[in-house]
Amino acid sequence: MMKSFIFGASGYSGAQLAALIQHHPNFELAGLGVSQHSQDAHKPLSDLYGQLKGQVDAILQPINESNLSALKNEMDLIFLATPHEVSQQWVPILAGGKAKILDLSGAFRLSDSQQVRAFYDFSHSDQALAESAVYGLVDWYADTIAGADLVAVPGCYPTASLLALKPLQQAGLLNEAAKPVVNAVSGVSGAGRKAALKTSFCEVSLQAYGVLGHRHQPEIAQELGAPVIFTPHLGNFKRGILATITAQLKPGVDDGAVWEAFHKAYKHSPLIRLIPGFPKLDDVVGSAYCDIGWKCQGQDIVIGSAIDNLLKGAAAQALQCANLVADLPMNTGLNGGKP
Amino acid sequence: MMKSFIFGASGYSGAQLAALIQHHPNFELAGLGVSQHSQDAHKPLSDLYGQLKGQVDAILQPINESNLSALKNEMDLIFLATPHEVSQQWVPILAGGKAKILDLSGAFRLSDSQQVRAFYDFSHSDQALAESAVYGLVDWYADTIAGADLVAVPGCYPTASLLALKPLQQAGLLNEAAKPVVNAVSGVSGAGRKAALKTSFCEVSLQAYGVLGHRHQPEIAQELGAPVIFTPHLGNFKRGILATITAQLKPGVDDGAVWEAFHKAYKHSPLIRLIPGFPKLDDVVGSAYCDIGWKCQGQDIVIGSAIDNLLKGAAAQALQCANLVADLPMNTGLNGGKP
Amino acid sequence: MMKSFIFGASGYSGAQLAALIQHHPNFELAGLGVSQHSQDAHKPLSDLYGQLKGQVDAILQPINESNLSALKNEMDLIFLATPHEVSQQWVPILAGGKAKILDLSGAFRLSDSQQVRAFYDFSHSDQALAESAVYGLVDWYADTIAGADLVAVPGCYPTASLLALKPLQQAGLLNEAAKPVVNAVSGVSGAGRKAALKTSFCEVSLQAYGVLGHRHQPEIAQELGAPVIFTPHLGNFKRGILATITAQLKPGVDDGAVWEAFHKAYKHSPLIRLIPGFPKLDDVVGSAYCDIGWKCQGQDIVIGSAIDNLLKGAAAQALQCANLVADLPMNTGLNGGKP
Amino acid sequence: MMKSFIFGASGYSGAQLAALIQHHPNFELAGLGVSQHSQDAHKPLSDLYGQLKGQVDAILQPINESNLSALKNEMDLIFLATPHEVSQQWVPILAGGKAKILDLSGAFRLSDSQQVRAFYDFSHSDQALAESAVYGLVDWYADTIAGADLVAVPGCYPTASLLALKPLQQAGLLNEAAKPVVNAVSGVSGAGRKAALKTSFCEVSLQAYGVLGHRHQPEIAQELGAPVIFTPHLGNFKRGILATITAQLKPGVDDGAVWEAFHKAYKHSPLIRLIPGFPKLDDVVGSAYCDIGWKCQGQDIVIGSAIDNLLKGAAAQALQCANLVADLPMNTGLNGGKP
Repeated sequence: MMKSFIFGASGYSGAQLAALIQHHPNFELAGLGVSQHSQDAHKPLSDLYGQLKGQVDAILQPINESNLSALKNEMDLIFLATPHEVSQQWVPILAGGKAKILDLSGAFRLSDSQQVRAFYDFSHSDQALAESAVYGLVDWYADTIAGADLVAVPGCYPTASLLALKPLQQAGLLNEAAKPVVNAVSGVSGAGRKAALKTSFCEVSLQAYGVLGHRHQPEIAQELGAPVIFTPHLGNFKRGILATITAQLKPGVDDGAVWEAFHKAYKHSPLIRLIPGFPKLDDVVGSAYCDIGWKCQGQDIVIGSAIDNLLKGAAAQALQCANLVADLPMNTGLNGGKP
Repeated sequence: MMKSFIFGASGYSGAQLAALIQHHPNFELAGLGVSQHSQDAHKPLSDLYGQLKGQVDAILQPINESNLSALKNEMDLIFLATPHEVSQQWVPILAGGKAKILDLSGAFRLSDSQQVRAFYDFSHSDQALAESAVYGLVDWYADTIAGADLVAVPGCYPTASLLALKPLQQAGLLNEAAKPVVNAVSGVSGAGRKAALKTSFCEVSLQAYGVLGHRHQPEIAQELGAPVIFTPHLGNFKRGILATITAQLKPGVDDGAVWEAFHKAYKHSPLIRLIPGFPKLDDVVGSAYCDIGWKCQGQDIVIGSAIDNLLKGAAAQALQCANLVADLPMNTGLNGGKP
Repeated sequence: MMKSFIFGASGYSGAQLAALIQHHPNFELAGLGVSQHSQDAHKPLSDLYGQLKGQVDAILQPINESNLSALKNEMDLIFLATPHEVSQQWVPILAGGKAKILDLSGAFRLSDSQQVRAFYDFSHSDQALAESAVYGLVDWYADTIAGADLVAVPGCYPTASLLALKPLQQAGLLNEAAKPVVNAVSGVSGAGRKAALKTSFCEVSLQAYGVLGHRHQPEIAQELGAPVIFTPHLGNFKRGILATITAQLKPGVDDGAVWEAFHKAYKHSPLIRLIPGFPKLDDVVGSAYCDIGWKCQGQDIVIGSAIDNLLKGAAAQALQCANLVADLPMNTGLNGGKP
Repeated sequence: MMKSFIFGASGYSGAQLAALIQHHPNFELAGLGVSQHSQDAHKPLSDLYGQLKGQVDAILQPINESNLSALKNEMDLIFLATPHEVSQQWVPILAGGKAKILDLSGAFRLSDSQQVRAFYDFSHSDQALAESAVYGLVDWYADTIAGADLVAVPGCYPTASLLALKPLQQAGLLNEAAKPVVNAVSGVSGAGRKAALKTSFCEVSLQAYGVLGHRHQPEIAQELGAPVIFTPHLGNFKRGILATITAQLKPGVDDGAVWEAFHKAYKHSPLIRLIPGFPKLDDVVGSAYCDIGWKCQGQDIVIGSAIDNLLKGAAAQALQCANLVADLPMNTGLNGGKP
């Protein structure tokens, strides 16, 4: 059993990850950490999440820099489901030990240090460490992830977007003169577990935000290798992301070529379901699946992609990364999405 | 035109009231006030409520005790949509001038000073003033309200509950040996406009709260003249209260007597709709109506009562009180519930 | 008072229109009609819509072709909130009398008879009548509408889309080489009032539909004068449409030119609100407003547009058309959106 | 592996059960049946439920009386997730073979034939068979269920209600002169998978139904051994039941006695969680748990009980019954509620 520790376990992604690890056949939930000043410190996780009562009753331990470094040789796997700034500070402390690090924040996703500064407002203290981070898009980079010491688990929107666009891009089917347009709607859990007027029940209603400036735009562009126009929206539901992507195919590219590109890309990805028609959000909520559907007309193509933002968009993909790092089959402990 | 001022206009009830007064044929919206430390001070109300843009663009003025007392002779009507503690402190300052006062908080609803202390954790500085407050249940106390200087506008749950129970109680049809059981579900707006984990979108799900200890229990009992068991619930919707009330009829009381009690009670209340079947919440949301339906079987009776918590349960009933105080027809400016 | 009759009054748009006309200062609700075989015939409208009890208790009259033609000289205004096929058959019968006709269906919106056949699967029996129909986009075609005998009230998606795109298109700011991408999410009421598995509560979840084939695509393109890629989605809410539109500006077009185009286009349209930031759906639900916001970055522009699909997207715009036809101020009877 | 067949697998409970059996370590999903006239016949279950794609792709077989009887000796377990009337007709055909029968409908729950007629409008053709049915409330009747040939799996509301009330009733703590008042709110899935105006998205809003006449009232009373007043409500959510129960304790019964009654009753029921405070619905949705909390004040007690109506209220309890019948640990294949 590999000893696994989760920082930021009080958040939605961290708690979800704790539940997944609790049922994992090869991983042991060795500890849950929260910020030392958190009012949730010393509580069982199930005090915060009633649904976990009897499932994950482990105590949230307060973590500071001094007990942090001890963990790096005690643990086999360290997951950070922490704010970007916390990951940026803690990963260098945790690096270099026995533990492999899986960071669910955005701190180590962008490779261009200027973009890091522009979109995250910090610079990495250890640039070499930052450059060693492997982007954890498991259905595309399994081999590299398997050898990584530090995995930057992809963002929720980038996961949904890239899984839809990369098959076409890699097959050279997209017209490079036209930027793909990615419109996506996320459930409110994407904003994290906290008191905020913006995400209070009465204030939530479908609305675009972060238009032409969201930090997931450079992340998508970096991993796609091409610019996109990305518009995220907050939706009136708790979990899930639905991305609708409009792109232009190169002249002469037809339905058959598109079909082949998708099926070739995901023939070894049982948790990516290529469906007729367009995905319905609730079909993936609560599961690790990504559902993808599309339609072409002339050179126009519209692609739909749906994931659970806390699972395939965070905790489940982090677990897939950890499985790869641990040399286990990628979907160990997932069982698809238990419906 | 009667000059009207609203304290606490940044809250859900206050903003709703501002919108109603803006369209009232006899009242003029003379000012909107917020706490002097509020971050909303100096903003137009429509900055907080996009739906009011072009409707109520008046500025939220910061209020402190010094500019408070000037208003009492400038205004004809002063509405307080403030926290209980603020009303408890400010009403004595505002009293004694030209302005009639309509307090939407719970500060002046309970007449027993021990209950005030037990349920609100304060005592009134001016007990005579507190005793002069008239309970603003308009469909029952119109005459007294018309002559009041200070009206305690009823709570949302008490409004829904009392409108359902008082006809039977007043007609002497209820078995006094059995306490009526009031179960009610409220939309999240009942918790007010604020950042709080408890009312953040992802945390809200149907749940009872304040069981056997909610401050609306003594308020219902006081105005009913009999004890009740009251269990409030938070529901996963923004607005509205549905109360389901189970009571025991005296031996011999039949359907006909119940029918007559309800119809007699509300023959002059066009905004109380006695319906066949049981009320559906959305039929009253956005309107000033209260819908009431019931069924008897032997001596058991189940009554359903539905209101919009921010309208009949707050702003619209406050406006009805103000109409009475101003010697206007009670429903002036309401048009029922514009669907 | 102008006598007004509504066919299809049992549907969501028809019922909404009935409520608006009931409160209109110059129009009289002279009758409500439903199909002669409807199970709702002979019921008061408020039996179907509890919220209209005490507001619109008029009876739904069964209509057949024989009593149809009598109405054309009895009425001043005839509204059809009927299925496309019914409007296509009934409008020719109703035409030629005293009554002006306002058709909320899609039957008379497309001017190209081949497109009519392709997207509606019928041909008009009286092509000259069909060609005489005026497209009722009130904020753009007020003068023509004022003189029309037959108004084709725009579809919900086209209203939201065209109000966002026409200012830029008319000002010549759009790069014609790139089709605007219109992504829109509609509340379930857009699917009409009927029993269907697809719109049953448990089956509804955010999902694209009608991709690259929806009949509102040619309607938008026709009135914009340029092709678009339109992707509608069903959302998990009852009312409202939010459209997010991505387009390319011509080289050299900047923020200022865009600002001016929007403000010039709508300086006489008080119910179109040009807002900073992006519209939130609930800010327009229950009102006749259209909220529009946008952001530019280089030649990319993203525009958000929000309406209530049953109001500005149907009944309220039909009423605005009728006001124009009746030579009244366009917003008579609307009061913006009563919040 | 025990061969298991599910009739009515196209419905919400049936499909949920199929997914559970698919992952059960000792049961094999041997077949899924639907009515021979169903339009879903010959489709994979995952065509109806996108979330089951890749999980349960088995074909829905059309069933008629002739192929019905063959199954009774082929199968080890036959589950009926069929309408009451279908179960009433088919169970006698299926009885008497090798297969144990688990009926999720209400057909065999009431033991009084007059009540069966009154509440289900039919009489059993084989009264002895009907009398042999064992009520499948697993946390109370495990021993009897283990020996049953025919199990009547409890209704959703009765499960939530009985689990809350039986501990007090069995311990003799309830004042028998006062009927417990059970108010419960169910998600829309409780109404089944079908096209109906009443459960269409736009029509659903919190509302009581079946007041003082719902067929779950006699079921609760029968198994409690005492009358209750039961008021069900439809809520605006897909899954889950929250029951709030108000009862009277006998004079002298205190908190401690209540605590002991609950803890004694469920000390061997790990999927019943006795919680401080009151249950939140979403804490049990998607899981097989029942959460129970309560508060006493004098002789008043209010109890909250929450389940997923399709799991503990249907499929998961059916599976628990099957485990008992198969001499397996009761919670085999459940893993509590996977969060």
